[in-house]
Amino acid sequence: MDLWYTEKHSENVGITMKVTKTLFSGESEFQKLDIVETLEYGKMMLLDGLVMVTERDEFVYHDMISHPALFTHPNPKKVLVIGGGDGGSIREIMKHPSVEQAVLCEIDGLVIDKSIELLPSMACEIDGSNPRVKLHVDDGIAYIREHQDEFDVIMIDSTDPIGPAVGLFEEDFYRLVFGALKEDGIMVAQSESPFYHPEIQKNMYKNLRAVYPIVEMYQAFIPTYPSGFWSFAFASKKYHPVKDFDRERAKNRGFYTRYYNEDLHLGAFMLPTFAKENIAG
Amino acid sequence: MDLWYTEKHSENVGITMKVTKTLFSGESEFQKLDIVETLEYGKMMLLDGLVMVTERDEFVYHDMISHPALFTHPNPKKVLVIGGGDGGSIREIMKHPSVEQAVLCEIDGLVIDKSIELLPSMACEIDGSNPRVKLHVDDGIAYIREHQDEFDVIMIDSTDPIGPAVGLFEEDFYRLVFGALKEDGIMVAQSESPFYHPEIQKNMYKNLRAVYPIVEMYQAFIPTYPSGFWSFAFASKKYHPVKDFDRERAKNRGFYTRYYNEDLHLGAFMLPTFAKENIAG
Repeated sequence: MDLWYTEKHSENVGITMKVTKTLFSGESEFQKLDIVETLEYGKMMLLDGLVMVTERDEFVYHDMISHPALFTHPNPKKVLVIGGGDGGSIREIMKHPSVEQAVLCEIDGLVIDKSIELLPSMACEIDGSNPRVKLHVDDGIAYIREHQDEFDVIMIDSTDPIGPAVGLFEEDFYRLVFGALKEDGIMVAQSESPFYHPEIQKNMYKNLRAVYPIVEMYQAFIPTYPSGFWSFAFASKKYHPVKDFDRERAKNRGFYTRYYNEDLHLGAFMLPTFAKENIAG
Repeated sequence: MDLWYTEKHSENVGITMKVTKTLFSGESEFQKLDIVETLEYGKMMLLDGLVMVTERDEFVYHDMISHPALFTHPNPKKVLVIGGGDGGSIREIMKHPSVEQAVLCEIDGLVIDKSIELLPSMACEIDGSNPRVKLHVDDGIAYIREHQDEFDVIMIDSTDPIGPAVGLFEEDFYRLVFGALKEDGIMVAQSESPFYHPEIQKNMYKNLRAVYPIVEMYQAFIPTYPSGFWSFAFASKKYHPVKDFDRERAKNRGFYTRYYNEDLHLGAFMLPTFAKENIAG
């Protein structure tokens, strides 16, 4: 039997992939979780029926949510990830020797457990083996409220602004994150597709600009996300991701990155006209 | 009845789109041509069952095959497009006042005729109304052989290297194009997806480097092409697309481009690590 998974990116367009096996299918108190084996993209995790990560293209997302902020901040020591229960962001953060502690605050323990069991290439640093990593199964908003003025970098590695992540796109939340950052801290968040989600982007960047003095959008291509064209928000108290970027430090990083590099860092902030228009304030 | 068109990007993955109407379906001596109406992407042209252009995202491809070369060359007067029978590339070239003549050499007259009839937003400059545009329904290789030392810029706006376009990816052809360019000429060609087509890229760039002193790859996001991540080859006798780029001239271009802009021009050449590796020579 040929099984094809189709994710609709809108009513009228979608991506379709051949699936060979369902490795897990279950439901937590927050969402539906499926992990399947695909022929083209390896293992794939879905939340509420939407692709979150695949083994083949996760390197793009995890490089790009992590390294631009960690190479802009001159000395990131303490980093918080909200969401990101697959562990891919923590894996990349751990490549930075300056980081003394990374905290993962994921609302859904089932995502963490099943990632450790079935997606070890991503979850390799959240399985308890690394003393620099702390796990909290908790609501990110509650966690941040109790940890003010503490982090150099905070990454919002969330799902789309529907379901459990809806509060993570609002001004009140960005203000809380601002408070949880030190005086030169940086927040990064996935910010949807400029092609399919201009309205979400418009609101999100308006909310960010109400809180942070420096707000920039940057881009990455992720084949299994709607349109393949994805974006991240860089919101910062002090450091500008281009003007304050130390290209030499990034160039001499001493570890391999299959997507990120010191030139791509700069190019990622050079956006197509229509994407700039989405967030023109 | 719900009709969905699915293009497989490999054996195991594809894009699927809701189709409301078939506007044309026929066959020339070279290939099968279909033009359908989709709900998400407007009218869409397919050759041999593969998406060539859609009304909604064609601006990306046509901006990016045209403007980087035309804003790198200091004074492009005579431009040749091989393929490109939909007319979108010619439409963009015509926005450059320095261009005195643009020649479209398309092997398949049916593509031109049906584009003029059904895709007027793309074909608006190839319908006979513009005296700066010349059409030749001819084999591009034959045409170039007879027009040596004549063009400032030549754009290879071809299909994939299967079917009628296979010769347009070979070293002999790049040598012919080299001869058809003036001593400071630039050739641009679509060069497939770094994600799905590393082997095609490897060969193509090896062939280009055997002929041209300057060969660079640049990128664009095209949602309806495989993986959404697409690339173009910039092959040049004299001008480097980054070092010789006049940002001020591009900034003061005086016409609207929905994808291209003077910063994106530079960013487009800043590639992900894996894409650079595809063509590392």
